[in-house]
Amino acid sequence: LAEGQSGPRTVRELGEFGLIDRISRGVARTTDRVVVGIGDDTAALRVTPGCLLLATCDVQVEGVHFIVARTTPELLGRKALAVNLSDVAAMGGIPRFALVSLGLPASTTVDFVDGLYVGLRAEADALGVTLVGGNVSSTRDAIFVDVTLLGEVESDRVVHRSGAKPGDRLIVTGHPGDSAGGLALVLDPTIAAPGEIAEPLLLAHRCPTPRVAAGRAAAGTGLVHAMIDISDGLAGDLGHIAEASLVGAVVYADKLSLSDALIALGGLLDRDPLDWALRGGEDYELLIAVPPAGEAAVLEAIGATGLAAATIGEILPPDEGLTLAYPDGRRVALAAEAFRHF
Amino acid sequence: LAEGQSGPRTVRELGEFGLIDRISRGVARTTDRVVVGIGDDTAALRVTPGCLLLATCDVQVEGVHFIVARTTPELLGRKALAVNLSDVAAMGGIPRFALVSLGLPASTTVDFVDGLYVGLRAEADALGVTLVGGNVSSTRDAIFVDVTLLGEVESDRVVHRSGAKPGDRLIVTGHPGDSAGGLALVLDPTIAAPGEIAEPLLLAHRCPTPRVAAGRAAAGTGLVHAMIDISDGLAGDLGHIAEASLVGAVVYADKLSLSDALIALGGLLDRDPLDWALRGGEDYELLIAVPPAGEAAVLEAIGATGLAAATIGEILPPDEGLTLAYPDGRRVALAAEAFRHF
Repeated sequence: LAEGQSGPRTVRELGEFGLIDRISRGVARTTDRVVVGIGDDTAALRVTPGCLLLATCDVQVEGVHFIVARTTPELLGRKALAVNLSDVAAMGGIPRFALVSLGLPASTTVDFVDGLYVGLRAEADALGVTLVGGNVSSTRDAIFVDVTLLGEVESDRVVHRSGAKPGDRLIVTGHPGDSAGGLALVLDPTIAAPGEIAEPLLLAHRCPTPRVAAGRAAAGTGLVHAMIDISDGLAGDLGHIAEASLVGAVVYADKLSLSDALIALGGLLDRDPLDWALRGGEDYELLIAVPPAGEAAVLEAIGATGLAAATIGEILPPDEGLTLAYPDGRRVALAAEAFRHF
Repeated sequence: LAEGQSGPRTVRELGEFGLIDRISRGVARTTDRVVVGIGDDTAALRVTPGCLLLATCDVQVEGVHFIVARTTPELLGRKALAVNLSDVAAMGGIPRFALVSLGLPASTTVDFVDGLYVGLRAEADALGVTLVGGNVSSTRDAIFVDVTLLGEVESDRVVHRSGAKPGDRLIVTGHPGDSAGGLALVLDPTIAAPGEIAEPLLLAHRCPTPRVAAGRAAAGTGLVHAMIDISDGLAGDLGHIAEASLVGAVVYADKLSLSDALIALGGLLDRDPLDWALRGGEDYELLIAVPPAGEAAVLEAIGATGLAAATIGEILPPDEGLTLAYPDGRRVALAAEAFRHF
């Protein structure tokens, strides 16, 4: 303990109920939408009449999704919520409520937990989400942060994975592959990349920005046939659309909106940045299928939210499979290799 | 592998998407209430107009909540859902939808996962709950099963912890302490308790029955002031009611509805079974505060669901604190010692 500091240093010293009190501080207990918040057996929440409830959960596990020494608790908190926000965005929805289930070894520092909640609250506040409940548990040796996110969407505006049709244009937001580039830097700290390359890629990996406004804008056009977030990698998630919609697709290699930083890192490491963009995973961009007549309107609606988006391919009949087309006419099968946990 | 068997033995051999396919089998994808189920970015669900949405989550962690060798995957699956059902019951609600976030070491057997889902589905089916989503992640060395449960309750029927008033009667369902008695047997397998003692206690610990019908019946009388489940132990959760309602309370030692099995185990181990009933935790019974004029109606409504319930105490003014009263007139402070994770 530094001189002048006091108070519990670890979760063990703080105790379970002290921990719950601490993480409940500064969390609104009730709002117009939250009739019962943190502090009862369950939360009790109002869903807007005419809206469907959206529900999703995703976990960050120490040693699997993150390494404590290579991120900060604040960024981890933001990311734990952001990966779920991205799923609500992909349905065209508005995120509303989050529950946080936290698993902590007793030796976890109170500073870590405080930082984690700074990140969770910052991300929640930025998107208008209220933390309405959760759970803390001890674990033997690894931290996990499991977030359930609830949102809502007008019944006639919900966008599935399964509506893509041959001829649809494929639009992607942002710069796919940046997260995988950042991961390459995280996994090998000996790579000497200049700040203008490393910083945007590390940020994309450690603190992805969920595309909630863009998803909402795209769905709001009423023109979108299918939408998904590309957290499993562009190729993998295009595979999910293809499977659910019973279609094939082509991606144009020269249309993929790679960032300058990713192209530069590819040069530095003698790697093809297309690999990161297609198979990297943990990009939280949106992949959208829209009929040709709607392409301009969707690009414009997304652009109006301040985010870049580009048309990168086309939906084909199912017997065409998934292919990557190069400008010289070569076509190669696009293996839908996603990150696999096992 | 036994002769004639084939197929993957571990989650590593099955692979992530094989695992997801396997656990999605036999799960209804859509129903009247489930517009989008497992297999899209989020579930999309209908909440009944006029109802509040209830949301809660609770996790079972290997080595903390369970030991693989001392339970079965089926019982673990049932319990992982049951502990959440109990929270919805304590709000007077109807459980509807569950999301399951699963953390598994790659060496976990496929048989374990199959058994876990047999239990999850059995418990879900018994209470009319649909599994609508979830997530699988690898972990380094411990299994976790984190369940988020969504339910609903008519806006005018939701029961909080905070409404208890001095003079209210305290009613408890079932037999508090049975779970702690079962835990004592789990932790020390050398205890030689006859089957008629061990079996009901082990079952109460490994496979608690959530009191959904009783909670609904009690809330349905419109007379209940406060309700909570006693998963933190009767004394601890009475403390939660006292804190939220700004009241004190007395529990009558001779009115506590101890089971014959628990009393017998107390005799066998020379332990006071009251300790298990008051401070054991992991009982998933309901503790209810109701004004005297409503006591008979609530007892009758719960009895009509086939569950025993008993009046065990009374709510007092806040300056009385929490006390345990013996028939000989002695009163001792009832320390609200709940199970603590840290």
